[in-house]
Amino acid sequence: MRYFCRIIYDGTRFGGWQRQPDEPSVQQLLEECAQVVLRSPVSFTGAGRTDAGVHAAAQGAHFDYDGIIEPRRFIHSLNALLPPEVAIHDVRKVAPDFHARYSALRRTYRYCITTRKSPLLARRAWPVTFDVDWGMVTVQIPALLGEHDFSAFCASGSGSATALCTVYATSLGQERECMVFSIEANRFVYKMVRSIVGTLVDIGRGRLRSTLGEILDSRDRSQTGTTAPPFGLTLDNVTYSEVE
Amino acid sequence: MRYFCRIIYDGTRFGGWQRQPDEPSVQQLLEECAQVVLRSPVSFTGAGRTDAGVHAAAQGAHFDYDGIIEPRRFIHSLNALLPPEVAIHDVRKVAPDFHARYSALRRTYRYCITTRKSPLLARRAWPVTFDVDWGMVTVQIPALLGEHDFSAFCASGSGSATALCTVYATSLGQERECMVFSIEANRFVYKMVRSIVGTLVDIGRGRLRSTLGEILDSRDRSQTGTTAPPFGLTLDNVTYSEVE
Repeated sequence: MRYFCRIIYDGTRFGGWQRQPDEPSVQQLLEECAQVVLRSPVSFTGAGRTDAGVHAAAQGAHFDYDGIIEPRRFIHSLNALLPPEVAIHDVRKVAPDFHARYSALRRTYRYCITTRKSPLLARRAWPVTFDVDWGMVTVQIPALLGEHDFSAFCASGSGSATALCTVYATSLGQERECMVFSIEANRFVYKMVRSIVGTLVDIGRGRLRSTLGEILDSRDRSQTGTTAPPFGLTLDNVTYSEVE
Repeated sequence: MRYFCRIIYDGTRFGGWQRQPDEPSVQQLLEECAQVVLRSPVSFTGAGRTDAGVHAAAQGAHFDYDGIIEPRRFIHSLNALLPPEVAIHDVRKVAPDFHARYSALRRTYRYCITTRKSPLLARRAWPVTFDVDWGMVTVQIPALLGEHDFSAFCASGSGSATALCTVYATSLGQERECMVFSIEANRFVYKMVRSIVGTLVDIGRGRLRSTLGEILDSRDRSQTGTTAPPFGLTLDNVTYSEVE
């Protein structure tokens, strides 16, 4: 039987979601703890690989297990075994052809920037302490909406055949002590959000003269600015039609 | 000349604000870094000692230095030397008789509780995953308002001559994924906030039959419940008449 679950993690001390030969990963940790709880080897498939240091508020994942899982008890037992940085918040039986990655319709990422050094958000937000014209940058955000070739914002090493993504929603605004950039799309290419955020900051501080729309249209990686650091990024949600 | 400053820190890896022989402290770290910036030994006095693991969003502190400090430059240099977990957000010249501790009029603490395991708040909130009747607990909060002898909520080892405190404001309410208990008073006795929060949780889960007001009036330490863990607690503000 196939089960769907939601995984939450602070990515600070992990080499990312995906199992890796020489670094701790969320996937490996989950599989080790779930094997103890279920007394049988379990393999987790996530909606997407998050990079080292990137967080998740609601990563989607599935696993196969030939038995009945009582959700409340399974969640309680697994959370007790997992360290404070990782939790499971939901588990439910799904159709055998459900796939955490391929059945996902939309993903939402949020990126937090603090405008001064903020120890209480030290591993959750990027401190941008130089002057940035946030107003000028905010009006450029809607250029991302719709279907575009995001080659300009795609780092090499992604292995994707295409950089075509459809952006459904995006925003940039103040939330308490953070500037929060949020973006919802059907898919994302490698380091896309961090590349967009770094470019927005470079535009806002006058380091780049082109607009965000011009850089997007260029499809030219050399036109973009800095890649923002991973620790400001959180996979905020993954939307499915089947499970909600 | 005497200078006042605001210090922000994540207390996770510190043995508290106060210098200690065998553990890293915020005070010691600040003094070491400020000595580098000012090229002379500096001693910091804080508004209050926070315990190991307790955070501060706006600790007040003063230090003496015989020279002119240019605030923007000093803050920039000191923040560059301090680790991500500690920052200074303000520095200004004050009268020679100003004292970060004795001139403080009010202190505000906030305590965060999550009602499920929350990795993104792992070192900032206490996960209380058993059933608590928050509604029943919330109506008991106003019993704390005004001047009371807080002996019931005072841990031994404080060294205070009196447990008399005047509470100006207190609240308990949902803020996004946290239940936040907030309390503003002229002074606090040792572990007072953590003792109140632990007692509230014990009342809300039916472990204690007395009301918060009855326990307060008893002045009897044995009437209180659990002491909540330090990592949920943040010194949110210290109010002075002179500097704001």
